[in-house]
Amino acid sequence: MENERLKKQIEFLKEIDKLKQVFRQTLLMDGTRHENDAEHSWHLAMMAMVLSEYASEKIDISHVIKMVIVHDIVEIDAGDTFVYDEKGYEDKAEREKKAAERLFNILPEDQANEIKGLWEEFEERKTKDAKFASALDRMQPIIHNYYTNGHSWREHGVKSYQVLERNKIISEIAPELWQFINDILEDSINKGYIER
Amino acid sequence: MENERLKKQIEFLKEIDKLKQVFRQTLLMDGTRHENDAEHSWHLAMMAMVLSEYASEKIDISHVIKMVIVHDIVEIDAGDTFVYDEKGYEDKAEREKKAAERLFNILPEDQANEIKGLWEEFEERKTKDAKFASALDRMQPIIHNYYTNGHSWREHGVKSYQVLERNKIISEIAPELWQFINDILEDSINKGYIER
Repeated sequence: MENERLKKQIEFLKEIDKLKQVFRQTLLMDGTRHENDAEHSWHLAMMAMVLSEYASEKIDISHVIKMVIVHDIVEIDAGDTFVYDEKGYEDKAEREKKAAERLFNILPEDQANEIKGLWEEFEERKTKDAKFASALDRMQPIIHNYYTNGHSWREHGVKSYQVLERNKIISEIAPELWQFINDILEDSINKGYIER
Repeated sequence: MENERLKKQIEFLKEIDKLKQVFRQTLLMDGTRHENDAEHSWHLAMMAMVLSEYASEKIDISHVIKMVIVHDIVEIDAGDTFVYDEKGYEDKAEREKKAAERLFNILPEDQANEIKGLWEEFEERKTKDAKFASALDRMQPIIHNYYTNGHSWREHGVKSYQVLERNKIISEIAPELWQFINDILEDSINKGYIER
């Protein structure tokens, strides 16, 4: 291939195929296997399209979609960190920053900066788009847990108060979705999927 | 849940989880297993972000991304049709139309129309955005086949002339990507991954 720029782009697209092999704690809704990061990212993009009306501030849906599509790529090197794993969170930022350097820099410089910018915006959770993207990212595994009888909550002994504590970013940017989360958590307690 | 609209939206987001269990002919780049439609759709969204500069007409990347994110949802009911399966293509449109009616109509009417509109635009391949989205959809399995020593080409006895014939939509909307496809096909012939 003579086109050096395209060569780098294809190399990056080949490398990120590995995201399909990064497995999460969450099970698929049918409970048959763990979900991987690529599927999860796709699901978040669909959530962004369907649930954007619940954002309490005006958001740019297309920008949110781009963020959720790229947000987990760093986990190819850094691995998935379970949201309730306090120890894993200690060096998460460092591991992921290193991963971002290696992975995004496979791309031509301008695109590396663009994609890294989207990832950093997501990680910092400062803009309203990033907050909404993050809320979807936090909400999706809760829904999966609800529909799989609390699988990863039970496996890791996660309590309802921890779910509420760790995911309250949802309450700021999407109060109606937060109400929904509270409702299914209450139902999960009643059904024995999770302890209060 | 009192909010009937949110209830429909969540039901839809739950239903489309099944896309993660619709497997394609293509193997992952590491050759360990078949790829599913959700992962594939995510990969196309990344390709749209990285390769949009090769579109020969001005395209709306965000619109292309939305289209590739939704384009395969109908396969939850209709199944994946291998692009070289002429018999499967006979009733593909009919099967997928029926699937679209059932699946998208789980959503509130306005959103059902929006998502169905994106899917129809993709299927009709008339707009420049749809042509580019379709080109990516055709290009991705060719790259996967190249990096997995021609796995699904060999499995189904697909010839190089068929790949060129079935995927020429790429040549119209992205000539440089078409050149790249021609280059890797030529290399695939030399390496014995595919017959001319």
